[in-house]
Amino acid sequence: MPPCALTVDSLNPKVLALADHLGDAIARRAQIICCSLSNPQSMGQQPNKFFREVLALCDYPHLLEQSETSSLFSSDAIARAREILDLFPGRATGAYSHSQGTEGLRDVIAAGIASRDNFPCNAQDIFLTDGAAPPVHMMMHLLIRDQKDGILCPIPSHSLYKSSMVLQGATLVPYYLDESSVWGVNISDLKKQLDGARSMGIVVRGLVVINPGNPTGHVLVEENQREIVEFCRNEDLVLLADEVYQENIYTYEKEFHSFKKIARSMGYGEGDISLVSFHSVSNGYYGECGRRGGYMEVTGFNSEVKKQVYKVASLSSCSNISGQILMSLVMNPPKVGDESYISYQAERDSILSSFARSAEAMVCAFNRLERVTCSKAEGAMFVFPSVHLPKKAIAAAEDSNTEPDVFYALRLLENTGIVVVPGSVFGQVHGTWHFRCTILPQDEKIQLIISRFMAFHEAFMEEFRD
Amino acid sequence: MPPCALTVDSLNPKVLALADHLGDAIARRAQIICCSLSNPQSMGQQPNKFFREVLALCDYPHLLEQSETSSLFSSDAIARAREILDLFPGRATGAYSHSQGTEGLRDVIAAGIASRDNFPCNAQDIFLTDGAAPPVHMMMHLLIRDQKDGILCPIPSHSLYKSSMVLQGATLVPYYLDESSVWGVNISDLKKQLDGARSMGIVVRGLVVINPGNPTGHVLVEENQREIVEFCRNEDLVLLADEVYQENIYTYEKEFHSFKKIARSMGYGEGDISLVSFHSVSNGYYGECGRRGGYMEVTGFNSEVKKQVYKVASLSSCSNISGQILMSLVMNPPKVGDESYISYQAERDSILSSFARSAEAMVCAFNRLERVTCSKAEGAMFVFPSVHLPKKAIAAAEDSNTEPDVFYALRLLENTGIVVVPGSVFGQVHGTWHFRCTILPQDEKIQLIISRFMAFHEAFMEEFRD
Repeated sequence: MPPCALTVDSLNPKVLALADHLGDAIARRAQIICCSLSNPQSMGQQPNKFFREVLALCDYPHLLEQSETSSLFSSDAIARAREILDLFPGRATGAYSHSQGTEGLRDVIAAGIASRDNFPCNAQDIFLTDGAAPPVHMMMHLLIRDQKDGILCPIPSHSLYKSSMVLQGATLVPYYLDESSVWGVNISDLKKQLDGARSMGIVVRGLVVINPGNPTGHVLVEENQREIVEFCRNEDLVLLADEVYQENIYTYEKEFHSFKKIARSMGYGEGDISLVSFHSVSNGYYGECGRRGGYMEVTGFNSEVKKQVYKVASLSSCSNISGQILMSLVMNPPKVGDESYISYQAERDSILSSFARSAEAMVCAFNRLERVTCSKAEGAMFVFPSVHLPKKAIAAAEDSNTEPDVFYALRLLENTGIVVVPGSVFGQVHGTWHFRCTILPQDEKIQLIISRFMAFHEAFMEEFRD
Repeated sequence: MPPCALTVDSLNPKVLALADHLGDAIARRAQIICCSLSNPQSMGQQPNKFFREVLALCDYPHLLEQSETSSLFSSDAIARAREILDLFPGRATGAYSHSQGTEGLRDVIAAGIASRDNFPCNAQDIFLTDGAAPPVHMMMHLLIRDQKDGILCPIPSHSLYKSSMVLQGATLVPYYLDESSVWGVNISDLKKQLDGARSMGIVVRGLVVINPGNPTGHVLVEENQREIVEFCRNEDLVLLADEVYQENIYTYEKEFHSFKKIARSMGYGEGDISLVSFHSVSNGYYGECGRRGGYMEVTGFNSEVKKQVYKVASLSSCSNISGQILMSLVMNPPKVGDESYISYQAERDSILSSFARSAEAMVCAFNRLERVTCSKAEGAMFVFPSVHLPKKAIAAAEDSNTEPDVFYALRLLENTGIVVVPGSVFGQVHGTWHFRCTILPQDEKIQLIISRFMAFHEAFMEEFRD
């Protein structure tokens, strides 16, 4: 055999620098209770009926001509499928679309955004994508020239942004969310981090904000959002707003406000701030993760820059048409008077209220544990408790060459079968230890999880108490 | 207004270096006869019935429990949908799958590849993707460290490879296909190009081969494939085999042989050659371009390297499930005895024979034109005639600051409404001029296109004859 050309040492070092997907490997072990993945339909949640009716009819339009169809499908799903098919030249849902996505679907989505925000939205600003990851990679590709370019990124944050920056060779400029103010953004800290990076010669191009938060499950207060907008505007930063959990808010105290709405309500228009909003069909309560639908709304980019965004978007021809259709349904769900309206609302309320109950039960339980504190769960699909690990546990972790939070999570897994994601995957303030736990398990499972968790934690503390 | 942070000069120069999509802009003008896009369903071709039946049932599995379904869907589509749903844990087609794609679907695809090649295929080597573009970008990302890394790329070739290399900052090492031998690969020329690049310090990592060819519409002869395999093995190059048109061959003289089959039949196994085969649901005769299904089969990569491929694949969670399902249907179509078998074959034969008729009519017509020669059309969806433009036409093009082939194509468009893609988009031997014309238009349109084209060409020659 000749020496094989391909050794791991000869690969792109930026790829090698990517972290392994530890979580994935754990989650695939048998006999586990998965509290690590934001993947509702893998946990038994049923897909939304209206969405799937429309998708099926658009896949096989022949059904629309059959008499049996009216008894098999709801009337508004049939009407919607006809409307959608008419948006495709020749009704061809198997053709490549425009690289930004099918024009008529972008019109629908733009109308949905406008009605959500009460500010206009231009369909030309919408890029339909295969979920939220590709547009994040696109923006990084566009903004990052070399390792002297940096992006402000929240800590903790889910791995997409970090991975994308590693792959582009960008410098991640961290800013720490303030756990004491329900994971709010401290603007003076942000300014300090920005100035620090600049003093080291980093050209900071943008700021990532995740709202509602992942892994933190918080919802930013409006005042904080205004401060962030002002900051980006003053510092000439592109605001990269991850708003994929916008439909998952389960506190009556807060509601979702897009950063574009905030900026516009402050009187800032196209020329004042560059803003990208990411959304997807994966992260709403309906959890159509595998369908890979998403969009980014790109505003405050001049036409020359926009042309460059388009070039990058067209590298993969277009995003998948089913995902495009689904994204349009998410942004334009059944309305009062439609046959599906009542059942659609019932499905949504049932899921969101289950999330709310799980979240409340978990937060309450975690706060009763020794040396554990847990912020309110307001949105997204997670709680992110902090565990003040005893010195003896930290020493034991060091002995086994593991991060203390990983040590805790592995012990939890071994003893209970419960999988959570250790905080070090997301980043955390030095010397603090967290884990991310999804609130997806349904009522019957939650009590089991909580009681097993409590028993484990007590025993763990017993073993390692200082 | 503050100075906006985002100017085109401040973007990633690799993005700026990407070519604009000229073809796109032209194709969207009204009143045209599109011979530029490989997008069959945009030209009125109907999707395959069996494929769409299965997709619809998998989207809305509720249908499988209804009595009306047996009269609305063919029995094998129903059976197949049940089988596919059972491959998903909890039948959840809305959940994220494994980042390589749903395991059961990869098994089906691997079995399809094994039966195509008569050599084993391992499902672990399959990565399901959103069409063929993302896996090409993945491989480039993996292989290219900086501009000193190069990839041998055929000229002419469609823009994906060039774009991907530009975006990664790779050096494109061109090798010219030999028009005189129906666009075969001349190994001594290949060797010359490789040595030339190496002498300039370029580390050549891989070789792209497109078979059947795009834009050239050729099918490589087996002996030439063996030479290419031997070359890659001797020179330690990763063979990147674009085999997306494998189902579109419309000559009785040749058939498709995958490069893996060729390598294995030469006795070369895993340790002998690193090989990636790309396929997609866009480029078969059924043309499900918008559904974004695809796979790459990665062989001869050691486990450490494979782990890195997996990391890159997992950056976007997983490819879309509808596309995954469709890819499995393509690799496992209805069999003898299945209810859909006859109609499936009939649909396929009708489309492929229409392609064959169009191709023959076009090749014949182009070869009758003054100063035009056109190779046999054997596969893919294109013919790529060469036009020996008169000096006066070249001078007129120079006067209007246009490439001569672009000048010809624009004249054609203005005079006839026919859109073709100028050869300079794909690259061509210096001083030669070509255009790519799809063979997609159906019988009734072909004669119209040919007669308009001939009239145009005669007038053009009259105007510019030396």
